[in-house]
Formats: sequence, C-alpha cells, structure tokens
Amino acid sequence: MKKLRLGMIGGGPGSFIGAIHRIAARMDNYYELVGGAFSSSIEKSLETGKELGLDESRIYTTFQELIVKEKQKPENEKIQVIAIVTPNHLHFEPAKMALENGFHVVLDKPMTLSLAEALALKEIQNKTRNLLCLTHTYTGYPMVKEAKQQIAAGKLGKIRKVYVEYPQGWLSTAVESKQADWRTDPSKSGIAGAMGDIGTHAFNLAEYVSGLAVQKLCADINIVVENRRLDDDGAVLLKFDNGASGVLMATQIAAGEENNVKIRVYGEKGGLEWQQVDANTLTIKWLDEPAQTFRTGGGYTSSFAQHNTRTPSGHPEGYLEAFANIYKNFAEHILAIQNQAKPKKESLDYPSIEEGIRGMAFIETVIASGKSSQKWLDLLKVEG
Amino acid sequence: MKKLRLGMIGGGPGSFIGAIHRIAARMDNYYELVGGAFSSSIEKSLETGKELGLDESRIYTTFQELIVKEKQKPENEKIQVIAIVTPNHLHFEPAKMALENGFHVVLDKPMTLSLAEALALKEIQNKTRNLLCLTHTYTGYPMVKEAKQQIAAGKLGKIRKVYVEYPQGWLSTAVESKQADWRTDPSKSGIAGAMGDIGTHAFNLAEYVSGLAVQKLCADINIVVENRRLDDDGAVLLKFDNGASGVLMATQIAAGEENNVKIRVYGEKGGLEWQQVDANTLTIKWLDEPAQTFRTGGGYTSSFAQHNTRTPSGHPEGYLEAFANIYKNFAEHILAIQNQAKPKKESLDYPSIEEGIRGMAFIETVIASGKSSQKWLDLLKVEG
Amino acid sequence: MKKLRLGMIGGGPGSFIGAIHRIAARMDNYYELVGGAFSSSIEKSLETGKELGLDESRIYTTFQELIVKEKQKPENEKIQVIAIVTPNHLHFEPAKMALENGFHVVLDKPMTLSLAEALALKEIQNKTRNLLCLTHTYTGYPMVKEAKQQIAAGKLGKIRKVYVEYPQGWLSTAVESKQADWRTDPSKSGIAGAMGDIGTHAFNLAEYVSGLAVQKLCADINIVVENRRLDDDGAVLLKFDNGASGVLMATQIAAGEENNVKIRVYGEKGGLEWQQVDANTLTIKWLDEPAQTFRTGGGYTSSFAQHNTRTPSGHPEGYLEAFANIYKNFAEHILAIQNQAKPKKESLDYPSIEEGIRGMAFIETVIASGKSSQKWLDLLKVEG
Amino acid sequence: MKKLRLGMIGGGPGSFIGAIHRIAARMDNYYELVGGAFSSSIEKSLETGKELGLDESRIYTTFQELIVKEKQKPENEKIQVIAIVTPNHLHFEPAKMALENGFHVVLDKPMTLSLAEALALKEIQNKTRNLLCLTHTYTGYPMVKEAKQQIAAGKLGKIRKVYVEYPQGWLSTAVESKQADWRTDPSKSGIAGAMGDIGTHAFNLAEYVSGLAVQKLCADINIVVENRRLDDDGAVLLKFDNGASGVLMATQIAAGEENNVKIRVYGEKGGLEWQQVDANTLTIKWLDEPAQTFRTGGGYTSSFAQHNTRTPSGHPEGYLEAFANIYKNFAEHILAIQNQAKPKKESLDYPSIEEGIRGMAFIETVIASGKSSQKWLDLLKVEG
Repeated sequence: MKKLRLGMIGGGPGSFIGAIHRIAARMDNYYELVGGAFSSSIEKSLETGKELGLDESRIYTTFQELIVKEKQKPENEKIQVIAIVTPNHLHFEPAKMALENGFHVVLDKPMTLSLAEALALKEIQNKTRNLLCLTHTYTGYPMVKEAKQQIAAGKLGKIRKVYVEYPQGWLSTAVESKQADWRTDPSKSGIAGAMGDIGTHAFNLAEYVSGLAVQKLCADINIVVENRRLDDDGAVLLKFDNGASGVLMATQIAAGEENNVKIRVYGEKGGLEWQQVDANTLTIKWLDEPAQTFRTGGGYTSSFAQHNTRTPSGHPEGYLEAFANIYKNFAEHILAIQNQAKPKKESLDYPSIEEGIRGMAFIETVIASGKSSQKWLDLLKVEG
Repeated sequence: MKKLRLGMIGGGPGSFIGAIHRIAARMDNYYELVGGAFSSSIEKSLETGKELGLDESRIYTTFQELIVKEKQKPENEKIQVIAIVTPNHLHFEPAKMALENGFHVVLDKPMTLSLAEALALKEIQNKTRNLLCLTHTYTGYPMVKEAKQQIAAGKLGKIRKVYVEYPQGWLSTAVESKQADWRTDPSKSGIAGAMGDIGTHAFNLAEYVSGLAVQKLCADINIVVENRRLDDDGAVLLKFDNGASGVLMATQIAAGEENNVKIRVYGEKGGLEWQQVDANTLTIKWLDEPAQTFRTGGGYTSSFAQHNTRTPSGHPEGYLEAFANIYKNFAEHILAIQNQAKPKKESLDYPSIEEGIRGMAFIETVIASGKSSQKWLDLLKVEG
Repeated sequence: MKKLRLGMIGGGPGSFIGAIHRIAARMDNYYELVGGAFSSSIEKSLETGKELGLDESRIYTTFQELIVKEKQKPENEKIQVIAIVTPNHLHFEPAKMALENGFHVVLDKPMTLSLAEALALKEIQNKTRNLLCLTHTYTGYPMVKEAKQQIAAGKLGKIRKVYVEYPQGWLSTAVESKQADWRTDPSKSGIAGAMGDIGTHAFNLAEYVSGLAVQKLCADINIVVENRRLDDDGAVLLKFDNGASGVLMATQIAAGEENNVKIRVYGEKGGLEWQQVDANTLTIKWLDEPAQTFRTGGGYTSSFAQHNTRTPSGHPEGYLEAFANIYKNFAEHILAIQNQAKPKKESLDYPSIEEGIRGMAFIETVIASGKSSQKWLDLLKVEG
Repeated sequence: MKKLRLGMIGGGPGSFIGAIHRIAARMDNYYELVGGAFSSSIEKSLETGKELGLDESRIYTTFQELIVKEKQKPENEKIQVIAIVTPNHLHFEPAKMALENGFHVVLDKPMTLSLAEALALKEIQNKTRNLLCLTHTYTGYPMVKEAKQQIAAGKLGKIRKVYVEYPQGWLSTAVESKQADWRTDPSKSGIAGAMGDIGTHAFNLAEYVSGLAVQKLCADINIVVENRRLDDDGAVLLKFDNGASGVLMATQIAAGEENNVKIRVYGEKGGLEWQQVDANTLTIKWLDEPAQTFRTGGGYTSSFAQHNTRTPSGHPEGYLEAFANIYKNFAEHILAIQNQAKPKKESLDYPSIEEGIRGMAFIETVIASGKSSQKWLDLLKVEG
C-alpha cells in the first residue's frame, strides 16, 4: 500500500494538538509525514522537523512556502494532504491556499475565525473538489458512531430531548499567561472562548448523534474568571428542527473536571447515553425493558462501529484512536478517489466542511444570544 | 420514650406516597400512627385504617372531622402531628386548619397550589407557632447533607456553577388514564406538571446544597406528549444571588430514566457531585489533587451526615431512610420543644415553610418564563 | 391487620445488630415489639426497653425468664416471635428453649456455635414445627432474588463458575479492645472469626444464587493482625455438586473496604454480577449480545424481586430494606399458617434452619481445611 | 531523531497481535518497520509486507533468513530490533538466534515453551548483552505504574493481601476450530492454556504492582469446555515472600466477560484498585479517610505515570497506548545505550527476561499444582 504523503502547518515545539495529529496520522499507517511548516521561527520549525526525522529541505517556515514548493515537486513525491493545526485565526488562509493548489486538507476546529470565512471556504472547496476534513474528535469514537446508527435506525423512535455537556476545569484560574494564551485572545481565537473551543464539539456531537439540526437557541454566556477576555462558561437551550428540545452545557471553569464530554438523547422508546470517561460503552435505556450496554468491539455493533475499532472488546480504545479514526476514514476516502473506487459508506463518516459551517453558525449565534435580551435567536442562516 | 402520636390525611388504598410516609414515620420509632382520614370514601378509609391496625373510632373521612374530633381528646391521647399526603389542591386547607388547631404538620411538596397560598400559610404558622415540615426527600440523604456542609465550610471556595437535573421517563407515554391522573390535571396539580412534581425537588436541592438563592431564571417549558395538559419537560437557566449561574433540567419524558436526581456544584477550588443512583457517595473533585469520595457512614463525615445515618459504611441507606430522616429530625425538634430543651442543630436541618414558599415562587416564575419571550425573569418576590 | 407480637433477646445499649433487627421488624408493620431480655444487666435491659416504649413488666434479664413468663400469658397477648440477636455462643440455648415452648424464632447468623448444635436445633424444630428464620441479609435484596430466579429459569445455562467475595477493612488494626470484642473471642464466636462472621454470608449467597451446593473446598485461612485469636482473612477454592468450581474470598483486613459483598456467576450462555455497593442493579452479560442491567422496581423483574420491593425504580432500597424483607417474608409465612392459608411462594423465600446447618458445615470444614496440608476436604456431611 | 529499524517475525495475514505490535511500535515514532518474516508462506509474507509498504527484498519467509540477511547489511541500514509475535512454540529459537546475532528482541508472552527454555534464553542474553523486552501489556498502563509507585513509596504500609483476576469469556464455547487454534494446542501453546495466555499476565501484574514475589501456590485448574486439550479456567491461592497472601483468578469461560483484568492490593493503611475497563483511574481507599481517585494525566501523579502519558487528563488512553509504552521505553533504553547516555529510570521500567522467567516458573508450578493433591507447592526455583 502506498501511504499518503502528509504535510503539516503548525505543530511546532510545545504544541499539544500538533503531536496528537501526528500520532493519529501514524496510527493506521495511511500517512507518511514528509514535510511541514511547524513554526514561523526557522529554528523551531527545524527543531520539530528534525525530531520527526524529516528531510531538512522540506522543513518550511510559512504555509505559503510549503504550498508553493511542494506544488512544484513531482506527482509521486509531493505532499498530498496538509494538516493545519494552527490557532483559529490561521485556519482560513492556509486552508484556502491549500485547496486552491490541489491539496486535501485536515483542519482543526473551529473551522475558521468567522462564519463568513467558513462560507467562503465552502465556495472554494466547491470549485476545487479537493477534500476537507475537520477534526471533531468525539465523533470518531466507535460508540458515538453506534449511538448515531441506533438513532438513525429508529430504535429510539422520534427524538424528543438532547442533553449534551462538556465540562472542563482547566481555566478555573487565570492560567492565560502560562498556557491558554491564544485561546483566550480574541484576535487569535475569534469571538468565542469556551463556546468555540469546546461548545462547538458539544454542538457537533449533538447534531451528529441525534441526526437533527438546531434551529433556535437561547444562551447564557459568562466570563467567570476576572479579566479574561473571552467566555469561559456557557449554557444553551436548544430547539431542533423536528420539534425536540435540548440543553448544551460547556464550561472551562468546572474546577476538578477533566474533559468529560457526555451526550444523552431520548426518544419515544428509550434513551441513550455516552460519555468520554467510559468511551467504550454506549448505554441504551429502554422504556420497559432492562437497559443494554453496547461495547466497542461487540460483534453485535454496527458496521460503522466495527470499522472504527482495532482491538477486541475489553481492551479500551481511547482518544487517540478516536482521533485516528478521522484520519483513517479521510485517507480511505482519498484513496478510493485515487483508485476511482467507490468509498465505503463507513469511510465517508468523518466531519467535513458542512460541520465546520454549522459550528461557525453556532458560535456566532450563541455569542449573540449571550448578549441579547431576546429569548430565542434563530441559528444564523447558512446558504449552501 | 414517648412516641409522637401521628395522624394522616390522605394515603388511602393505592396511594404510593402515603405508604412511603408511613414507613418513614415508623423507621426510627419516633411516631405512632393513631388515626387518619385516608380517603373521602368511608369504605376506603376504613380499609386502610384497619389494615394499619387503627382503632376504628379514629378512622375518619374528612380532614375536618379528624381535626375537630382529635382536638377534643385528652392531651395525652390526641394526635400531635398530622401528615398531609393528598394531591396538591388539598394541601392548603388541611394544613391551615391543622396549624390553627394546635397540630404540627408534615406536608408533601409542592407546599400549596399557589404562591399566594404558600404566603398565607406562612402567616398562619407565624401566629400559631406550630411547626411545619415539607418532605423534600433528597435533602434527607446523608451525602446531600455532607455536600451542603462542605460548601458551607468553604471547602470549594466561592461557588460559580450549579447543575441540577431530575430526569424521569414514566410519563413518556400517555399513562394519565391509568396512573398519573391528578399529577397532569391542572385543577389538582396547579399550574405546573413536571416543574411542580420534580422541578421543585431539583430547585430545592440546588439552593440547599449551594447555600445560594436563585434570583433570575429563563425557562424552556414543554408539553411533549400529545394532549397532556401540563408540562412534562423543562430546562431552566439560573442566576444566583452571588453571581453564580446554573442549569436545572427536569423531565418526565426521558424514556428509560428512573429517578436519577443529580447535582453538581463547582467553586473556585473544586466541584462536588451527588446522584441518587449512588446515593451513599459524594464525590469531590479538586482542582489539582486526586478526587475524593465521601461515603455514608465514613468516620470523617460531618455531624450532619452522621446524625442521619443508621448503618455502618458500605451497607447502603436508600430513599426510605432519606425520607425517614426528615421525619426523624422533625420529631427531634418537636420533642426538644416539648421538653423545653434546645434542639440539636442537626435536628433543625429539615425542609420547612420557607423552602415551600421558595418552591412556589419557582413554580410560578418558571411557568411564566416558559410563556415569555423575555429572556430573564426575576424570581417572584416573596415578602416574609 | 393484627401485628405479630415480637420479643427480643439481646440488643441492649450499644448493640448495632439489635437496632437493625428492630428497624427491620418495624419497616412493614408486621410486628409489634412487646417484650425483651435486652441484657443480663437489669439496668441496661430496662434502659433499652423503656427507650423502646415497652411496658416495664415485659422487660426481662434472661431469655429463660422471657420465655417462661411470656408462655404463661393469654394467647392473644403473649409474644409470638422471638428475635435472638446475641453473640454466637448464646444462640443455641435460647433458640432451643423458644422453639420447645411454642415460639417462632428469628436468629442471627451464624446459627450456632458448632455444627453439632445446628443439627440438634434442626431435630428440635422438626419436633415442634415452629418456624425459624436466619438473617442472612444479602439474600433479602430484590436483585439477589432476581439473580437466583434468572439462574433457576435456566437463562445462563449450566453454571460453571462462581466468584463470591466479602471484603471488609474494619479489623485492619487491633480494634478488639474497643469494638470487635466477642467477634474475635473463640469462647463467644466459635472456632471462626471472619469465616463465621462474613464468610458464611458469602457462602450462603453463593449457594442461594447459584442453586448449587458446595461439595469440596480448599482454604487458605489467616490471622493477619498480630495477637488476634481468630482468623481475620481467608480465601477458599470451591467445588460444587454439578461440577462447577468457585472462589470465595472473605477478609476483614482489606483496609479501606466497607462491606462490598459481591457475587458473580457464569453459565454457558452468560454471566451475572451483583454487589452491595450498587445493590439495586443486577448485570447480566451475555455471550454475544449487549449486557443488560436489571433494576429494582423494573416491571420486567420476577415476582420474587417485585414482592420484595417498596419503592419505584430509581429510588434506592438498601440494607435495611433487605433485612426487612426477611422479617416480612417470615411474617407472611407465619400469618399464612395462622390463617390456614397457603403461603405465597415468594413469602417462603427466606433463609432458614437448613441454610444455618450448611453455614455451620462450611465453618467447620473451612477451618479444618485451613489447618490441613491435604488439598481438598469434603464439606462435612450433614444428616438431616 | 533517527528511528530504530524494526523487523518482525510472525504477524502475517489475520494475526491480531502482529497488528497490535505494529501500531504500538508506530505510535511514538521511535521505530520504522523495514523488514519481516511475517509467514512461512511466501505469498502471505509478501501480502503483509507489501501492505505495510516494505521493500520486497526485505520480506522473508523464515526467521533464519531474516536474521542472516539482515546481519549482512551495513550498520546504518540493517534491522536493529526484532519483534517476535509468533505462537509460543516459536519464541525460543528466533529469540535465541536474534540475540546471538546482535539484535535486540521484543517478545510476546509467555516468553518460551518451558522454564528450561526461559533459563537458557537468560544465559544467552547474559552473554550477548543485547536487550529483550517482553510485552506484558498491562504494566504499560500509567495507572498501573502509579499503583506500583504508591506501594513502593510505602503509602499503603506493609502489603497483606493481593487479589488479581483476568476473566474472559471468549472460550466459553468450542471455538477452537475457528479461532483459538494454537492457543488450545499443547504442541504450540505449551503445557498451559488459560494459565499461559492470561494467567501469566495476572501473575506478572500482581508481582509488578505489589513489589512482592510469589513463593508458594495452590491451584485449581480446570478444563471446562468438553474436548478442549488445555486448561481454560483456574484459580490460585498465593503466598508471597513477605508473608502476604493472595488469590489469582484467570478464566476464559466466564461467558460475557471481555478482558477485565483487575488488581487489588491491600496494605496496613489502605488498599488500591485498578481495572482495565476503567484503565485511567487508580482508586486508593484509605483506612479512615475518603478514598482518592488518581487519574492518568493528573499533575499529582508520579514521574513514571507521567512519562507514559500522551494526552491531557480526561482524554482516555487505552490498550494500544499501554502497549506502545512498552515499545517506547524499550526504544529509549536502546537509544540511551547507543548514545552512551544513562537511560532514565522511567525508561527502564518495562518487562524483561526476568519477568519472563518468573512467568514460566508460574506456568509450570501452577499446572503441577492443579494435578497435585498436595496443598501448597513452592514456586519452581529459578537459578539466575
């Protein structure tokens, strides 16, 4: 098997998410990292690139340089997929240029700095037909996929209620100086803090699992830690397109909480529950029967769950595997196209530009709602 | 020890809550049930009364009869405490008459049909000086008391966020005909369904544990099951008097859910979590240290927790014991007064008329908010 | 309903188990405590008796006195059931005398000081036809009953493996002086410490749930805390009569453990698991399907589970309710006999003299095995 | 950074463990797979090798060929580490030849077919000074390392009791024909089935975490499924060198169980508990204080835990990460030697030939004990 040649923008020394992307890309042997612009500092970019064993000639300092130089290389040598793992304000330009110059793109979330950018990116992609993948990690978990499939198959009946939450505690104190730097800086993060960083994950998870679209929302958005410039806490009442209602809670000041993303969805016949702390279990509670626990690796799980599982039941798969599933499915999609084959439906199940646009609409609406005295705001219209 | 002589209004054949009250009253041997008006049907009242081994002469059919006849009995014979376990619309009149005629009152929640009635009851109690106890069961759990004490002692620092939820699934279908009868009937239940039945529990739990008072709220109130007359679902954004925010979720259409009341409170230094399904555990998650699990019966727990514990650690105490704790503390308060002794502070820790008024203010505000297009409503003012 | 008149032997000031028995007896209103010999000290017996509101004339100091005096009272006045809650060495004599004089007996476990006493008691009971109930608490839990029923109905197929454990930590230090007094004193406790106190519970639970009988065992019995006179720890390999094997672990030196009795039973088609810390859940794990969680109060549970449940699903029932179920079923059996009615099969499901004999055989065999260099010992033969 | 050049013996089409080894080796970018003898069938070896993108010239069919050919290659080209992932009977010869010819070895467990082979391997290694790493996966988990460190630091006081268990259900039926082939074939698996496959994991975990050595044991070893040739179930009483006792349970016929390895260790001051199903949590229960839960990624964890952690707290790491930790530490050890640097103590913490010898001594003793009527057998003496 020929591996896809991967380049990376961002992810230099000290970058958490850059390291995660690289592990995820390596996990299933679909990619080979061959180049990168890891930092605008040449020393730092070289440091990371060499540590990764890259040829010095393919270690760059700007995304422009990477794109221009790689584009000139022979077909069987040049980078095919570019992973962009920079702060939010550095998503749009490199993604745009990459797509326009024939590269597929893996992009960290939230997709852009604004909804307008997101819509512009969509238009570019439409023209180029290169693929874009957005790393909404949690939808990569096998049991999240199982949850979606159970609901899509009608097992719970019509959906009535969605609770989704993402409590974190790491911004409980003013750690900005040391750690949270760009995430709390509007010029780099955009108009939202917690809502952009983790609220979008929760929003995406809710829409992905339920198969519904949020239509209206009412938000309570707070800055809890003094002098912080962006929201670090929020709760949102939701109305979905089928009439269901929901609640989204995302906070970074829940002292003592780690990253326990959790979703519960209730339909007429039962409810399901998944949470990251017990990521390999999906619980379905039935109206008048014993609850069932579906487990990663169970022979009874859907093809979507099994396609995204590597180990036998009981050997836990975690966050890195969920992340890797996104890379894996994206690779399978690209390879199918390269081979002029029909991609498996399971391979197509990764977050893409549409989810990115929904996320940006969520961010802009939720922040507006937080400032509004009007109860319900429609989710900003998105013209595809 | 002389037991307190207890009478009961309501609780006839088929009454779930009547049976629960009687077990709770029996548990610690503080009460002896000596009379009751269990039903307005003489056959039914007799059926229940005889099954309970009561003297036929003290089995009544109306609360008026019970109160009038018992009042005439000699001091050392007559009923001292009246438990009122009727539907909501039959709370105020018997409670009023009982208080006015020298009886202490145990009352099921919500306290009355309206905030006006609640305030009127307060005035009556002020005049009579008889005691009233409201059975908000969940505050009777030892680990809920521990949670309150930990927060009151400042262990979590200033409180910033409160999540409280009460998901049930038993009204997922139109069971009204068989079971939920009065609870979904506005003439008997009042203006609220789920919000009155379980929303008030969640509200009470949030204020009790956090030690804070809700000031404003914004509610999404729904009738999910067709043709139902009262709300069966709701979610509420909360603002507390210290600036903290919160979310309250109460639903009766979460198919598959039992009665998993749960509360999480976060302060500057850590967060705590309690839920009924694991009622003997209180988890405290610290900002930078391992989380701790406090357990019912632990020698390290507060005097409030230990006062309300009967069995050694590891032998679970449950719902009936929590309920019994309310009866027990109420008895200890009454007995202290009878003996002109100072009651223990632990005995005074039971829900009373103030909590009942807060609950009615919550109901009226939350239902108004559900209908309002204004985002935040102040909690209805309560003039003591 | 006429309540059964209950007398108690033991259970004076400071007795934990006496208080538990009284709560259990009160819970369902089947009994009225009317007399007792709570202590051999008249002051102490009076203290407890008066606190319980008993008539002074029925507060005794010896079991002989209680039995003799009560026997002389009129039929409709005298004690009908005697609860014996003394240390082990004071089980046989009062039980024997009670049975011989026409009283039904509730007896704490282990039943007697020796297997010989147990067999003698059986003979006495055979002659008198009075009933005896042994308080093996854990079999009173609804979900333990559900476990037994599932296995009895063949849901798991042929049983192959049983794991049962009872880890405690309260004897991790030399607390004998303060607390464990008689439990570590061979003259009062018998030849076994941990094995008698909690090992018998585990043994009973294993046989009750599996429906199998232990035939052979191989034990590792230890005294861990220096200078202790009886075993405080042990582990036992088991062979059952159907060829299944098992492991029983009981220890009182597992520092930090509370009372987490747990049982797991595996058959050809699946395995089940129950533990006291989550007493209202029974998990059944199937070979090739999602696991199921059965819950106390579930409408799908067996008649045995439902017969022993008081509250709706989700409102936890605990240790006291499990204890009370034994008292309740025993009462229903007695009342059926009094009324010459056929008792319900659910009412007959309480531990009795046969379980007591099995328990004593276990104790004697396990202690012998602990001292033996022979690997397997047959469980001591019991000739009914 | 120069990656270590890895070769693999075994791991052809359909091999579960081969794929796992490759993911583990890739995870942290320390290795590059450059050659392999994946199968004795040239077609199959080529199939796997090509799928992995290997140069055809380095795809072999016998371990001899791989070793001979690779040895002849230039220093900066040839394989440096050989991973042996064949069935047990094909461990010794390739490992011996690899060590003798200058390769480091990663070996799957159990180490060899017999204790004699294990001791022979040790002698060979002593002469060659090449390194050997044994993939006892579970000791790679950060919270297992934390457990070991807590005990080593004396936090629990003197250790008194160890419970270790490994329940699986996948051999509940006669799946040999399809799946378990060599694992139930004595000529390939050795004298033990379950005891070799998972019993050795449990044994290793117990000794690793407790820091103690098993001295004596007493085993009940069973073949439960008809016609199976090797044990599929067993339970073992243990005596450790410090006087502590323990129980080891390993079974493959616990229908419905996945791979829930679990260990509990109790000392004078508290007990700890870890299980694979909740692999990122280590619970420590203290004698008289609230229990604590240590979590992967917690800033308060030991350097050993943190060294083996990739993601922030709350993002679960799983089985593959635990496996990868073994590869990672082994690589760090090799690289330190290559660089003539002192390896970090955390890097040296991987299972090696000593653990392999202990494991083989366990297998031979436990199988002998299963057949013996003598109660206790000394663990076979191992002369280093």
